[in-house]
Amino acid sequence: MTRITRGYRFVASHRLHSAQLTEAENAELYGKCNYPFGHGHNYSMEVSVSGEVDGRTGRLVDIGALDAYVDRQVIQTFDHRDMNQDIPQFRDVVPTTENLSREISRRLKEEWKFTAVLDGVRIRETERNLFELRET
Amino acid sequence: MTRITRGYRFVASHRLHSAQLTEAENAELYGKCNYPFGHGHNYSMEVSVSGEVDGRTGRLVDIGALDAYVDRQVIQTFDHRDMNQDIPQFRDVVPTTENLSREISRRLKEEWKFTAVLDGVRIRETERNLFELRET
Amino acid sequence: MTRITRGYRFVASHRLHSAQLTEAENAELYGKCNYPFGHGHNYSMEVSVSGEVDGRTGRLVDIGALDAYVDRQVIQTFDHRDMNQDIPQFRDVVPTTENLSREISRRLKEEWKFTAVLDGVRIRETERNLFELRET
Amino acid sequence: MTRITRGYRFVASHRLHSAQLTEAENAELYGKCNYPFGHGHNYSMEVSVSGEVDGRTGRLVDIGALDAYVDRQVIQTFDHRDMNQDIPQFRDVVPTTENLSREISRRLKEEWKFTAVLDGVRIRETERNLFELRET
Amino acid sequence: MTRITRGYRFVASHRLHSAQLTEAENAELYGKCNYPFGHGHNYSMEVSVSGEVDGRTGRLVDIGALDAYVDRQVIQTFDHRDMNQDIPQFRDVVPTTENLSREISRRLKEEWKFTAVLDGVRIRETERNLFELRET
Amino acid sequence: MTRITRGYRFVASHRLHSAQLTEAENAELYGKCNYPFGHGHNYSMEVSVSGEVDGRTGRLVDIGALDAYVDRQVIQTFDHRDMNQDIPQFRDVVPTTENLSREISRRLKEEWKFTAVLDGVRIRETERNLFELRET
Repeated sequence: MTRITRGYRFVASHRLHSAQLTEAENAELYGKCNYPFGHGHNYSMEVSVSGEVDGRTGRLVDIGALDAYVDRQVIQTFDHRDMNQDIPQFRDVVPTTENLSREISRRLKEEWKFTAVLDGVRIRETERNLFELRET
Repeated sequence: MTRITRGYRFVASHRLHSAQLTEAENAELYGKCNYPFGHGHNYSMEVSVSGEVDGRTGRLVDIGALDAYVDRQVIQTFDHRDMNQDIPQFRDVVPTTENLSREISRRLKEEWKFTAVLDGVRIRETERNLFELRET
Repeated sequence: MTRITRGYRFVASHRLHSAQLTEAENAELYGKCNYPFGHGHNYSMEVSVSGEVDGRTGRLVDIGALDAYVDRQVIQTFDHRDMNQDIPQFRDVVPTTENLSREISRRLKEEWKFTAVLDGVRIRETERNLFELRET
Repeated sequence: MTRITRGYRFVASHRLHSAQLTEAENAELYGKCNYPFGHGHNYSMEVSVSGEVDGRTGRLVDIGALDAYVDRQVIQTFDHRDMNQDIPQFRDVVPTTENLSREISRRLKEEWKFTAVLDGVRIRETERNLFELRET
Repeated sequence: MTRITRGYRFVASHRLHSAQLTEAENAELYGKCNYPFGHGHNYSMEVSVSGEVDGRTGRLVDIGALDAYVDRQVIQTFDHRDMNQDIPQFRDVVPTTENLSREISRRLKEEWKFTAVLDGVRIRETERNLFELRET
Repeated sequence: MTRITRGYRFVASHRLHSAQLTEAENAELYGKCNYPFGHGHNYSMEVSVSGEVDGRTGRLVDIGALDAYVDRQVIQTFDHRDMNQDIPQFRDVVPTTENLSREISRRLKEEWKFTAVLDGVRIRETERNLFELRET
């Protein structure tokens, strides 16, 4: 089995604040990420696909088609956007990178039609923080 | 002469929009960076100092003291902040990274008391964009 | 169990073109990678080995011996070479990085005599494209 | 299931030398790493945790609390230290990075109280050498 | 004065061989880079521009327009190409990265119409080799 | 004029401690770097040379010959060594990276016979600290 991991980039802003918590609890829980006007990141995203290589073309997946799909499902929605304001799913859900990873994974699965299997999504928020979604 | 370059990081959000331009001009000029709710970046900043090495200590500058100064003058102000809302200087000035570099350089010079000379500030906004301020 | 991943580098050129396809199909399928005279990459390769650490030496594998083996089996063959012209296995097989990964993996297994197990090969072709071979 | 990988850094020195081997065997086995006065590295360490995301906070783990724990259990002990002289566990055990990984993993498990599971430790010793510990 | 450095990438192949030298001299001088069928690299290119920031827009240069210009003058010509075969200037000139830098610089100057000044071109051929052109 | 920057790596250990200072002053001045048994780093070094490109060969400098020279003058002396114990120049001089840069620069100039000019040495000690020597 072969696995290909393809890298993407987008930039976005977010503010971590839960309507279910008091101001003090929000400040305590999220720290600087709770500052009122938000902040942002350069996100890098890795999408992995796996499966059998086509013997005739030597290819596992058409990377151009994968790029077009990822662009349509994810990049166009998140790039240069404010998650709290621009993404409907984050109206009532705190846009932590844990939840962002889940939302991106959901969007990637939504209309997946490649014969290769979607085999993992990884979001790097900062040099020190990497978030990964795994099917159990 | 010896030069030391020390790296720092902060995250912030901004929106590029000039009150002196029409909506159409703003959209044309700034593109995605003009989206209404803003976006953000992981900024990395390099501060260079140069001068003569102290023969007794083998040191050009006390890096701990430099860190404390940079933290006080820059990082505490910009980290996890929205430039348009949180930074008074960007009330009437568009927070492009060109202007951000100038503002950071101004703050670094403001109370500079090290014997080593401040010898350049570089702001990396994305993997592809680096901004550098030079005294002419 | 401990796993060590060791990094290697080589540079090479290739052209993606299948004799089983028409000119138009090749151009459509491989895009710029089908340009007639080929192009090249800086490849970085990671070889992972796993097993039990030797209690007496504190070592899982003799890295010097691993380097000599990888050099003999892979680097000397591929480094500064044109895959289509210099590698017999790519006479009739398109040298996509999927197939390159398989060929490199085959060569690594060929005379593997280390007690540590060969536990994965990863080829990075560009900053955005990573290829990984997994035994199923 | 979600997995978060958090990065840390420390610098340290070590010398590879086994009291159970002759001088000639040590020189042969460890090469330059056996030079009498030792050498050092910038280590980077990745600690992964996995589990279910808290629906209320959108968080898998309190990263601030994780940082404090890792600092107390690992960084304060190893940072700017000589492993052979400063770390009791390396009195009779050769401080190879294989053994360092095991020792760090042991210290991380020692008082682990997070609901998220400790899911892997990786130590990068040089650009080319990565060591990973896996539970079997 | 402000300086912006913008990064670009392209992949290409080349063979180092001088018609003015004997086979033995070529092999001696260029080593592996003289292998008959050539090899390739992932090139990364930095283009620096400097000048005064426009007070109204906060911009030194229109990066979108710069990208379009660099794409037309350089990337479209070199990306996925074989320098010896595809680039007329390398018919009689050895495509060393020294000469590649000069050729790229010449193409960038050819129709430069930006008010900001072209202030340096840097070509990274491998992780270890960087080539820079400076006007004297 | 063309400038080439070539990268090298070595690992070493050092302890910052000045015989001219009291124990308390050393602890205050050097902090963790004064711990009694020392620590170490992965150093990366960049050596720049500049001059005119040879029209016949397309080369500024014979990189193989440069590597051999740098290896002989610097790498063999510093790699896997303890600066305080193994390097005579650091018997009475504190091996700060400022002083290390000066010593490496001195060794590079010592028998320099290339027609290209030695145009800068940069030592990266950690991801955040870069030291550069400039002729005034």
